[in-house]
Amino acid sequence: MLIVMRHDAPEEDICRVVAAIEEMGYQARPMPGKQRTTVGLVGNDGRVDGSRLAALSGVQEILHVTKPYKQVSREWKAEPTVIRLSGGLSIGGDEVVVMAGPCSVESERQILEAARCVREAGATVLRAGAFKPRSSPYSFQGLGQPGLRMLARAREETGLLIVTEAMDAEGMDLVADVADIIQIGARNMQNYSLLKHAGRSGKPILLKRGLSATIQELLLSAEYILAEGNPRVILCERGIRSFDQSTRNLFDLSAIAVVHGLSHLPIVADPSHGTGHRDMVSPMARAAVAAGADGLLVEVHPNPDRALSDGAQSLYPEQFERMMKETRLIAEAIGRRLAEPAGVRA
Amino acid sequence: MLIVMRHDAPEEDICRVVAAIEEMGYQARPMPGKQRTTVGLVGNDGRVDGSRLAALSGVQEILHVTKPYKQVSREWKAEPTVIRLSGGLSIGGDEVVVMAGPCSVESERQILEAARCVREAGATVLRAGAFKPRSSPYSFQGLGQPGLRMLARAREETGLLIVTEAMDAEGMDLVADVADIIQIGARNMQNYSLLKHAGRSGKPILLKRGLSATIQELLLSAEYILAEGNPRVILCERGIRSFDQSTRNLFDLSAIAVVHGLSHLPIVADPSHGTGHRDMVSPMARAAVAAGADGLLVEVHPNPDRALSDGAQSLYPEQFERMMKETRLIAEAIGRRLAEPAGVRA
Amino acid sequence: MLIVMRHDAPEEDICRVVAAIEEMGYQARPMPGKQRTTVGLVGNDGRVDGSRLAALSGVQEILHVTKPYKQVSREWKAEPTVIRLSGGLSIGGDEVVVMAGPCSVESERQILEAARCVREAGATVLRAGAFKPRSSPYSFQGLGQPGLRMLARAREETGLLIVTEAMDAEGMDLVADVADIIQIGARNMQNYSLLKHAGRSGKPILLKRGLSATIQELLLSAEYILAEGNPRVILCERGIRSFDQSTRNLFDLSAIAVVHGLSHLPIVADPSHGTGHRDMVSPMARAAVAAGADGLLVEVHPNPDRALSDGAQSLYPEQFERMMKETRLIAEAIGRRLAEPAGVRA
Amino acid sequence: MLIVMRHDAPEEDICRVVAAIEEMGYQARPMPGKQRTTVGLVGNDGRVDGSRLAALSGVQEILHVTKPYKQVSREWKAEPTVIRLSGGLSIGGDEVVVMAGPCSVESERQILEAARCVREAGATVLRAGAFKPRSSPYSFQGLGQPGLRMLARAREETGLLIVTEAMDAEGMDLVADVADIIQIGARNMQNYSLLKHAGRSGKPILLKRGLSATIQELLLSAEYILAEGNPRVILCERGIRSFDQSTRNLFDLSAIAVVHGLSHLPIVADPSHGTGHRDMVSPMARAAVAAGADGLLVEVHPNPDRALSDGAQSLYPEQFERMMKETRLIAEAIGRRLAEPAGVRA
Repeated sequence: MLIVMRHDAPEEDICRVVAAIEEMGYQARPMPGKQRTTVGLVGNDGRVDGSRLAALSGVQEILHVTKPYKQVSREWKAEPTVIRLSGGLSIGGDEVVVMAGPCSVESERQILEAARCVREAGATVLRAGAFKPRSSPYSFQGLGQPGLRMLARAREETGLLIVTEAMDAEGMDLVADVADIIQIGARNMQNYSLLKHAGRSGKPILLKRGLSATIQELLLSAEYILAEGNPRVILCERGIRSFDQSTRNLFDLSAIAVVHGLSHLPIVADPSHGTGHRDMVSPMARAAVAAGADGLLVEVHPNPDRALSDGAQSLYPEQFERMMKETRLIAEAIGRRLAEPAGVRA
Repeated sequence: MLIVMRHDAPEEDICRVVAAIEEMGYQARPMPGKQRTTVGLVGNDGRVDGSRLAALSGVQEILHVTKPYKQVSREWKAEPTVIRLSGGLSIGGDEVVVMAGPCSVESERQILEAARCVREAGATVLRAGAFKPRSSPYSFQGLGQPGLRMLARAREETGLLIVTEAMDAEGMDLVADVADIIQIGARNMQNYSLLKHAGRSGKPILLKRGLSATIQELLLSAEYILAEGNPRVILCERGIRSFDQSTRNLFDLSAIAVVHGLSHLPIVADPSHGTGHRDMVSPMARAAVAAGADGLLVEVHPNPDRALSDGAQSLYPEQFERMMKETRLIAEAIGRRLAEPAGVRA
Repeated sequence: MLIVMRHDAPEEDICRVVAAIEEMGYQARPMPGKQRTTVGLVGNDGRVDGSRLAALSGVQEILHVTKPYKQVSREWKAEPTVIRLSGGLSIGGDEVVVMAGPCSVESERQILEAARCVREAGATVLRAGAFKPRSSPYSFQGLGQPGLRMLARAREETGLLIVTEAMDAEGMDLVADVADIIQIGARNMQNYSLLKHAGRSGKPILLKRGLSATIQELLLSAEYILAEGNPRVILCERGIRSFDQSTRNLFDLSAIAVVHGLSHLPIVADPSHGTGHRDMVSPMARAAVAAGADGLLVEVHPNPDRALSDGAQSLYPEQFERMMKETRLIAEAIGRRLAEPAGVRA
Repeated sequence: MLIVMRHDAPEEDICRVVAAIEEMGYQARPMPGKQRTTVGLVGNDGRVDGSRLAALSGVQEILHVTKPYKQVSREWKAEPTVIRLSGGLSIGGDEVVVMAGPCSVESERQILEAARCVREAGATVLRAGAFKPRSSPYSFQGLGQPGLRMLARAREETGLLIVTEAMDAEGMDLVADVADIIQIGARNMQNYSLLKHAGRSGKPILLKRGLSATIQELLLSAEYILAEGNPRVILCERGIRSFDQSTRNLFDLSAIAVVHGLSHLPIVADPSHGTGHRDMVSPMARAAVAAGADGLLVEVHPNPDRALSDGAQSLYPEQFERMMKETRLIAEAIGRRLAEPAGVRA
């Protein structure tokens, strides 16, 4: 950490900064420059809170040299984390895992039909929400517990693993009984109570990036889960806020390369929410795999015209099939392969 | 709602859109234009979910004519909502309410000292967190329940009302015992489980705008609380995400005028989080009152250099006193006045 | 400048950084930390380009301690710059200067009517464009030279000073014959050829902040003008890009406080472009003055319903009158006053 | 165009809107809804300026159904535009064109060395700036005309085509003598004087997206060039402004799919400016080609450690070679191929 002094800060201000650093248990190293003095704080293990120093008289700004997260970082653990899931599937290794399904569970019939169709095309995980965070209180809020039971049925019948969202601690306990992976949605990325609960759940967690979260904040939220003892976190890029309304969100594919540089955790991409338009899902899925994504999260609906939510971004079954073929070729072009459904894996 | 068709959409696509609208129970009105046909949906009460129509073949985009919120809107209720608080104070009327205090409760001594000092300068509500949402799991997380007890003590001694944050349902029940106003923080603005709980709490709620929330999303989150039967919601602008790092957040003062145009709910402004720099708090507090804010939320610390959080944006007591004088003059210049502490009010 | 090394950078990488710094003519000061080494570059006068060092092996990032601008900074000149304009008017001192008028010059009759009406209400500078940058090639592009002649007529008749925009070097020479202040628009804020030309024009320049320009970039663009020998630069906040479409732009009033902290140059605010809605102009004009703006730039049209451009954000004459009264009170509340028209000034 | 009235707009306001539309020469079609009336404007060919209607009393907002651009749109011309360049090369067809080279021309030796090395790896166009737009007036501004002569030399020796930037009309005339493609940089995307000049140059134009330009604004800027009679415009995504500083810009790959949906013009991607980090260029180049980019613009320097600008994002020659191999495989996986250097093409 570097404390930059104002150009006109008197000697006594600098002394007060030095004293404060030493009082906090670190070493201070003042460096007079041509225009101003800067004071280095030596010995920071990433946990120093700079706001106290920023408050001192004569301080212009604080520059951070050390990142504030620890366990999620590449410096803490150099090799990529490979998360073992049920049924021999794993994420973070050579295989690219495709998770697909409708936005919401709408009925047993719908979810079974969706499950069969995505399995047939080669997906290995079924995605669908029973608890739905909707910006309007008047929109369909999901089927809740009955929806979870339908997911369990789909799992039984198709052998697909299940990823589904939890919105609060109580719901997470219910979801944990059914899901192979628990999803924390973008709007809850900084719901720290929920993150801590996830850290104690013992389940793999799919953590979606918040709508205006920096990569550093995403990693800090993951750190909350690891700090509670759960190292099985899968990050997910799903689009961020932008000034341009030509897509629903701005799908930030460079996040994949940034995360791979800073962290050992796997990261998947969600081109459905990332773009909001069915026609853009395939090109962006290909791009995500080309950029190095460890998996995809894709909305597919047996009959998108009748979907209760997110119809416009859900693929038709035949579009999904084509997408699978295209991304398979891309995966191979960079020396990876798509994970195969359980039967095939064996 | 207006469904815009692609310029080359065949007749049968248009018919399918019309049929879908009618099936949903509304009237469809196709309008052939020079370049394309658009189909009007008539009878929308604000609850129609457009995604199902967006999914239909030949549809280019959906334009919303009706806003998706209801009870929070000026069209639902034309006169401004005045929220009565304890001790004769109210917010949303002529008086501008100043809520001030440290970021966190740190000790009984600190909070009592802070309470006395802000009361003396003329504040009527004490703000301070016992539960703190921090981006890093290693930062100070607040004193929790003991902190709440200290706030109760400060209330007793100074007569100030209390506003303090709740981060989950369990915490909200604890906070409700002590607080006159329950705060929902920016990071939880779309934590719908918490919003519903707040709607059932029967307490006035201070709802902070999320870091990248549009005004419409802020109003929809407020709608969640009203929809559960609690009309006492105070909105709060506290700065949003921007590309420019010269301030901590981008303090969006035009939100005050926009909210006053769209909604009958009161809105206050937080220039401390809005800017992140102590030196900018006074000018921005003046600007907020000039723009029509119904109140201010300001961080003041008896000794900012020793603050456990947000030191750099906390005012020194004497700065706060000056700020009060300046904003009082501004309030008067626009025909309002600062709310006076209880003793004075009587 | 601080060069942060990767945590695993070998000794030789550090040596190469030190050598590169010394080769550039500066002093290098390596500081081994707990997690990584950082190397300080001492003697930077603000002109060092860090990209060469960023390119060296083992370098993680470059932190800037010194700002890259010089002549525009408060450290270069501590007292605020007061720019003397024709007719005894000045900007940057105690007086708040109001510049008002229509978006475009549309006819002699229209501009004379507008000039009289804004003068009557107390404005001292007439704003109106003869050359208009429009996002579509099919929109009205301004009257060009005949428009400039009409402005000259309005000046003659009313004694108002003229501020009008130039879009290229050739146009600037024409504008310079008529205008008291030459405006460089937001879209040209980083048109460096035009900035250099402005630096050689000898005229006061009103430089508008670009749609996504940081304050630092705004100051660097001003630096281009000062570096060519023209110190008479007035900065202008006019709203920036945001994810929220509820206003045309996001009016960043904190820019006023930030600029006043970093620079000695005056800054005015344009609440018309800043919000895009007539109803929001008055509250935001009040807020701008309360925040410390040295002037206002406001669109007023004698008949906004017939305006060829920006009708929706132009004030009706009676609205402008009311706005003047309100901002006058705000100016007085903070110890300033509105500049008075020439006759009155005398 | 749809004019949405306020819910309480009286009949006479609606009549005034209808009259205004008819006076403008279009048909008005009022549609009373459940909550409010909307008035459709029929016959819009994309050139109607809505601001005049927005200014009328009782109008709440204007919704645009027709896009404001014409000649650049897919509706104007359905098949993709293939731009023929010198030497048999073309862009917009099956081939993916790689343009590579240093940020700036620094010396004849440097540019020749760079040209040879990118040609060897398979690039077909040499990129390098002689006129450089730099945010600081104290940064290296390019060699100017001597730099252009060096580029001509490199063209002669290697057979590579040349793309280089022009910053003003005068410079564009000089550049036109040497360049096969004239670049208009991001900061000048809305420099309309320059766009019109480019429209009259008769040369292929590479138009870079502005830092906060929407896709619609990018297309409108291209429309300026087409409207002057020059249909040979190549668009370029190069990263936009974001709140996250972990990359230099936010590389918006979905722009490729959006542009391909709305326009017939080719679009290339610049992963060097798009990310700002050498290590991210290869993954993002692969992703861009997978997303359907018609070409790449990449910074390569024979010796990045000594580059006068953009060193940190310039590839080492061996990195570029590897990138070419990887993107070639990706191009093939989606049924395209990299354009081959002239000798090979023959």
